[in-house]
Amino acid sequence: MKGKVCLAYSGGLDTSTILRWLQDEGYEVVCFLADVGQEEDWDAVRSKAKKIGASKMVILDLKKEFVEQLCFRAIQCNAQYEGRYLLGTSLARPVIARAQMRVAQEEGCDFVSHGCTGKGNDGIRFELAFLAINPKIQIIAPWRIPEFCNRFQGRNDLLDYADAKGIPVTSTKAKPYSMDDNIAHCSYEAGMLEDPSVPAPDDMWTRTDDPRKAPDVPVDIDIKFEKGLPVKLTVGDNTYTDSLELFIALNAIGKKAGIGRIDIVENRFIGLKSRGCYDSPAMTILRLAHLDAESLTMDGKVRSLRDQFVTHHWSELLYNGLYFSPEREFVENSLVFCQRRINAEIRLCCYKGSVSVLSRTSETEKLYSSEEASMDSLENFSVLDTTGFINVNAIRLKKYGMQKAEEGQSLSKA
Amino acid sequence: MKGKVCLAYSGGLDTSTILRWLQDEGYEVVCFLADVGQEEDWDAVRSKAKKIGASKMVILDLKKEFVEQLCFRAIQCNAQYEGRYLLGTSLARPVIARAQMRVAQEEGCDFVSHGCTGKGNDGIRFELAFLAINPKIQIIAPWRIPEFCNRFQGRNDLLDYADAKGIPVTSTKAKPYSMDDNIAHCSYEAGMLEDPSVPAPDDMWTRTDDPRKAPDVPVDIDIKFEKGLPVKLTVGDNTYTDSLELFIALNAIGKKAGIGRIDIVENRFIGLKSRGCYDSPAMTILRLAHLDAESLTMDGKVRSLRDQFVTHHWSELLYNGLYFSPEREFVENSLVFCQRRINAEIRLCCYKGSVSVLSRTSETEKLYSSEEASMDSLENFSVLDTTGFINVNAIRLKKYGMQKAEEGQSLSKA
Amino acid sequence: MKGKVCLAYSGGLDTSTILRWLQDEGYEVVCFLADVGQEEDWDAVRSKAKKIGASKMVILDLKKEFVEQLCFRAIQCNAQYEGRYLLGTSLARPVIARAQMRVAQEEGCDFVSHGCTGKGNDGIRFELAFLAINPKIQIIAPWRIPEFCNRFQGRNDLLDYADAKGIPVTSTKAKPYSMDDNIAHCSYEAGMLEDPSVPAPDDMWTRTDDPRKAPDVPVDIDIKFEKGLPVKLTVGDNTYTDSLELFIALNAIGKKAGIGRIDIVENRFIGLKSRGCYDSPAMTILRLAHLDAESLTMDGKVRSLRDQFVTHHWSELLYNGLYFSPEREFVENSLVFCQRRINAEIRLCCYKGSVSVLSRTSETEKLYSSEEASMDSLENFSVLDTTGFINVNAIRLKKYGMQKAEEGQSLSKA
Amino acid sequence: MKGKVCLAYSGGLDTSTILRWLQDEGYEVVCFLADVGQEEDWDAVRSKAKKIGASKMVILDLKKEFVEQLCFRAIQCNAQYEGRYLLGTSLARPVIARAQMRVAQEEGCDFVSHGCTGKGNDGIRFELAFLAINPKIQIIAPWRIPEFCNRFQGRNDLLDYADAKGIPVTSTKAKPYSMDDNIAHCSYEAGMLEDPSVPAPDDMWTRTDDPRKAPDVPVDIDIKFEKGLPVKLTVGDNTYTDSLELFIALNAIGKKAGIGRIDIVENRFIGLKSRGCYDSPAMTILRLAHLDAESLTMDGKVRSLRDQFVTHHWSELLYNGLYFSPEREFVENSLVFCQRRINAEIRLCCYKGSVSVLSRTSETEKLYSSEEASMDSLENFSVLDTTGFINVNAIRLKKYGMQKAEEGQSLSKA
Repeated sequence: MKGKVCLAYSGGLDTSTILRWLQDEGYEVVCFLADVGQEEDWDAVRSKAKKIGASKMVILDLKKEFVEQLCFRAIQCNAQYEGRYLLGTSLARPVIARAQMRVAQEEGCDFVSHGCTGKGNDGIRFELAFLAINPKIQIIAPWRIPEFCNRFQGRNDLLDYADAKGIPVTSTKAKPYSMDDNIAHCSYEAGMLEDPSVPAPDDMWTRTDDPRKAPDVPVDIDIKFEKGLPVKLTVGDNTYTDSLELFIALNAIGKKAGIGRIDIVENRFIGLKSRGCYDSPAMTILRLAHLDAESLTMDGKVRSLRDQFVTHHWSELLYNGLYFSPEREFVENSLVFCQRRINAEIRLCCYKGSVSVLSRTSETEKLYSSEEASMDSLENFSVLDTTGFINVNAIRLKKYGMQKAEEGQSLSKA
Repeated sequence: MKGKVCLAYSGGLDTSTILRWLQDEGYEVVCFLADVGQEEDWDAVRSKAKKIGASKMVILDLKKEFVEQLCFRAIQCNAQYEGRYLLGTSLARPVIARAQMRVAQEEGCDFVSHGCTGKGNDGIRFELAFLAINPKIQIIAPWRIPEFCNRFQGRNDLLDYADAKGIPVTSTKAKPYSMDDNIAHCSYEAGMLEDPSVPAPDDMWTRTDDPRKAPDVPVDIDIKFEKGLPVKLTVGDNTYTDSLELFIALNAIGKKAGIGRIDIVENRFIGLKSRGCYDSPAMTILRLAHLDAESLTMDGKVRSLRDQFVTHHWSELLYNGLYFSPEREFVENSLVFCQRRINAEIRLCCYKGSVSVLSRTSETEKLYSSEEASMDSLENFSVLDTTGFINVNAIRLKKYGMQKAEEGQSLSKA
Repeated sequence: MKGKVCLAYSGGLDTSTILRWLQDEGYEVVCFLADVGQEEDWDAVRSKAKKIGASKMVILDLKKEFVEQLCFRAIQCNAQYEGRYLLGTSLARPVIARAQMRVAQEEGCDFVSHGCTGKGNDGIRFELAFLAINPKIQIIAPWRIPEFCNRFQGRNDLLDYADAKGIPVTSTKAKPYSMDDNIAHCSYEAGMLEDPSVPAPDDMWTRTDDPRKAPDVPVDIDIKFEKGLPVKLTVGDNTYTDSLELFIALNAIGKKAGIGRIDIVENRFIGLKSRGCYDSPAMTILRLAHLDAESLTMDGKVRSLRDQFVTHHWSELLYNGLYFSPEREFVENSLVFCQRRINAEIRLCCYKGSVSVLSRTSETEKLYSSEEASMDSLENFSVLDTTGFINVNAIRLKKYGMQKAEEGQSLSKA
Repeated sequence: MKGKVCLAYSGGLDTSTILRWLQDEGYEVVCFLADVGQEEDWDAVRSKAKKIGASKMVILDLKKEFVEQLCFRAIQCNAQYEGRYLLGTSLARPVIARAQMRVAQEEGCDFVSHGCTGKGNDGIRFELAFLAINPKIQIIAPWRIPEFCNRFQGRNDLLDYADAKGIPVTSTKAKPYSMDDNIAHCSYEAGMLEDPSVPAPDDMWTRTDDPRKAPDVPVDIDIKFEKGLPVKLTVGDNTYTDSLELFIALNAIGKKAGIGRIDIVENRFIGLKSRGCYDSPAMTILRLAHLDAESLTMDGKVRSLRDQFVTHHWSELLYNGLYFSPEREFVENSLVFCQRRINAEIRLCCYKGSVSVLSRTSETEKLYSSEEASMDSLENFSVLDTTGFINVNAIRLKKYGMQKAEEGQSLSKA
């Protein structure tokens, strides 16, 4: 025997083929499936793995770990890739990879394997994580092995193999796109979506209802943050304080109101552009609420530096699969530091595809003072100070104006 | 006589008082009012100014200049202050200040004056612009002159003065907040809005209808960009290619669909936090469309650098009134450069408070290739390359993993 | 009596005048002088203060605090303002301001005062620190009080006042420039130096000997860093492990070898350019050594992010007097974090005006591996990986090349 | 025949082997050698190439192109990789790659080849350039072909092959390190230098004399910049205005004075650390002079943004071989823009290993004003403005102080 492999197994045709093929190649295979909140028939996956020959099928519930350690960190960061993508898939990868490596270690596997293709982000994300976690791990990525690729050139080759090897095949018709579901979002890409001029089909979305069919009555909710983390959700008479329950409740509210759909073209780590659609109800609501909590409680200069440095880089690092890296650790240290006083409660309104802020309060933070902000009140404020402030700031600008005049360009011309 | 003042005159109680007070103080006053698309009874303002004693009332239509030179630049930049504010007021200031300085020059004024208070952003924005445009200009800012402030301590003092001096006072009841309207947005702040825990009143918004009362039928539109600039809007059978008409048409569509309302707390230049509400229909739609146009046509690394450098700084500079500055010129040069190939047409859907992207195409740009992006196609692509790419990127990460292990921290632990 | 003032008193003509003038104005004055390593006749200052009427003269030795909390932090940061200035004066200000506020509090002073002018950085640095430390403190800055400025328009007015009031005046001829000395550096500015085309006089420098007269024999030294902090200096048979002794020994070595002189034009916080000369022997040597320690022990990506974010901003914040600010705290948190493994020993050579690195080692850190770096060794390294790495990185670049070709610009043309 | 290859040929043992091996493999080989200012016996290389079987040997003088388009751009940028490396090798690569691709095209080659190893930066730099310039070019990198590597596992295998094939071998003893020489610098790495604790040998440096043996008399020089470019060098009675002559003259001055040696550990693009020594006399002098020219003539805020954005990224991009990339073009556009008014003349002193600034002037630029900078002059300056400036800047800081007090941390404590 060549050794023991821990395979990320989903129960689908691809990974079922890999599961069997690895055995053909002389490996013992331990299957692993992470529960990160996706829709799944867990028992069916378990029995299918066993049927195809897995020596073990390990399913781990990572939902709480995923929500608390990744999703909430992304919320603290206001994370967004390229201005729109809330990183649902990227956030799940570190949690899954880490758990798979724990299983590999516990089961004594020298190898790990997965069914990702060679052109997407996910194979990169998984393997960079595997190699950081255990620099000695050996990776089998069948879709990057020429022999495997040549043998299985299309869905029919996989079906033929399944037939020949007695691999059960679900009769459900394949969707005209790929999906990746977890508690943070569902992603849709490839297939018909590869043409960016074709709108996404109405019946594609799974984590959000159609905004056009959403209830006519808005739902107002309150989210309380402590140290930048959501600690309480209030919806009518219901309150949620457990992280996972709060997240699930927000997903339900957002789903019904059709909140959090995006359809974008994004730049993959390898430099190719691809089109992806994502629906992320809870994340969308939480991000806006957190943004507003910060507005009330974070110093403006810290915020400006944080936006440039932390938000941008943390988002990019996560997207590129660099969670297990010294630079992510470095950036995240800053992130956590700046959240120490993000304590506020935000009232939001969810309605037909969008969420908006209604009002906000903080019991403990005092950076906002309505009295000081008031244009009418001049207590503790000398209007002469503003004159000095302007004049000092104008020192450089006057020189600029003179320089432009010298160059024959009047700044007063439109 | 002390000299000639060019006063930014709106026709309201404050600037009417200033107009008269300046004359009391011995100045001749030329009034100036910029038409940047606000709702206004221009003739009434004109006759009021004359009645109070202005030697001249100059009203200039700056709408096209405002839309083309500022609003569209902001769109090219995806400009946003603190993650949400589309800068409507900030964008208008340079255009107004520049025109006022032209008038001052043409009318031979050594002084300019305005009615801004000492604690807000606008006085700073206007004056930094004035001083850059003409370093020798002398500024009279009555609300920063202690004598003036002492004399006029509240609305009643102004009304008494108006009564004594025969200044006409509009009988309309004052709103419980201040507004600043222009073609890009209307802003609402101060008064009752100073308490951030009080939701904005439903009847406050002027540039957007209530999303809850918006039509049940979504409106699909197409916006075409050339070099990052919107050059064509198609709505049903109508097309708009003139910049101003296009902008106005988008405002109308956005108004009806209730798109572009925000309610935020922001950090003023002077370091105070204040609460502002803004509705910016056309800008909101254009920003999303432009973001999507860039996704399709801009290189990913350029975009990442641009986001950190140009978008952040241009937005902050505009907010802080530093349009006429060498650093704005420096940053904007980069901005324009990176828009050379942002040529795309975006289809969007406007519906009850939100706008979303449906699809996009580009006639000329080829950075996106559905064939290359396809996970199924391996033409022109060696899967082995990804292995190499991963392994090289993992060199550092493996060392990180070993370092962590050495420190007794297993990266595989949650 | 108007109250009690804590005055930053140096014993010079300016602050002696202020000391007396404050009494004339009806204040009781407690004098404060910080020992940050400057050359000073402490007893003379003390007795002069008493003679002029100070109710108390407090002299505090802040040298160790200054070196450990500010100078060493700057070293960890590789701090440099505008590419050259090592911030000697800026680093001392927070330590001095903080101590003065302690004294003010202990002595029950409601006021603090200083002798800084209105156009330099120091008045701003001190007062921003005072106001952050105690938002209620009242500041008397005579050189920004018009009456004071009008009364004392030149050195002669000060001398006349001194004569009239019996203030002792040192007979030493005033230097044709101002100096500010502390253990980190001596600064020279103003006076004859205001003309940037005039070279600094040879006899100006006090903390460095003339490189042209430095010994012909180079001095090799070893500096050991732990967590980015210098913990041991070895020079021949001598070793120094106490922070202050180490710093003083380095100053002595650097002085003799003429290391650390710069002559620059810099941009003051208020936007004016000014010319300054500085000699900073220990800081110059330590900065290079630390830079080299990091090269050996810090991850490259962390370093790149740190350079952009921490080094730039921390330096600028310190220069602008924003030590006591949330943004400095935010940035410094990152700085300290990234120094956890900067453990290395650097051998340097000091010789006639310059310091250079000879070699470096680390007992504990293993990011550098000569075996891996070796071009000859291919163990643990597949050359095919580099091919993949190149090909993936080239995906975007090929598109760029095609785009350029399309635009008619051949990238192969010079 | 398999086709025609354009090989980067240096005349050394490695590329001579490759030249012959390519012919063994069935290719026709056109040799190319770039003259970027390195020491070389051009005729010997030419005849050796012919002797080994090259169908053609093309040598192109790229010195002027190299100096003007790369070295001077680096100077305008104050380019430095990781705070010390002036990028000598990195700057030469784009010029060489571009010329090689011109030759390949002119000679009808479908292939290009080079002798770089798989672990260094240079192979990556060359190939990324090749692929951007001509996305269809086919690259033969023998040191990344397993068969080639296996066959030639050490110097002895190369010598045996040379012997068998009649390849002339220079009898000079190989240096215990590798060198790469061009007009910007000479680099030294590998071999004995791989151990970072071993000092570089005294006799290693070729472009700089030993500072300890440099003349006792300092040399003063004047460098004039226009738009950030060096346009005139004055040394005693000699002036140089031709770019190449100026650069060569500076190299000569710097060599004699021993200016520009560094010994560093750097982070290669692939993530490995390596040790390199470099001597770059002209570049070192020019960089300091340009830095000083900017201090006098560039706005402070532009400079601060430029330092963060342009200097950092341009340097990193060049180091990583990304000259032919949209992001380099993007960044460089900013760079050139900010140099429009960098017009100044700088006087420097070169002496025993270091260069220092003596003084500076500008005939045209007026951002520096000694009168304004003067602490004594208060004309055009109201000291009250500084008070206002401080008070407004303190608004945020006071809140910070209050927050800290609330947290029980006194900012006055050391």
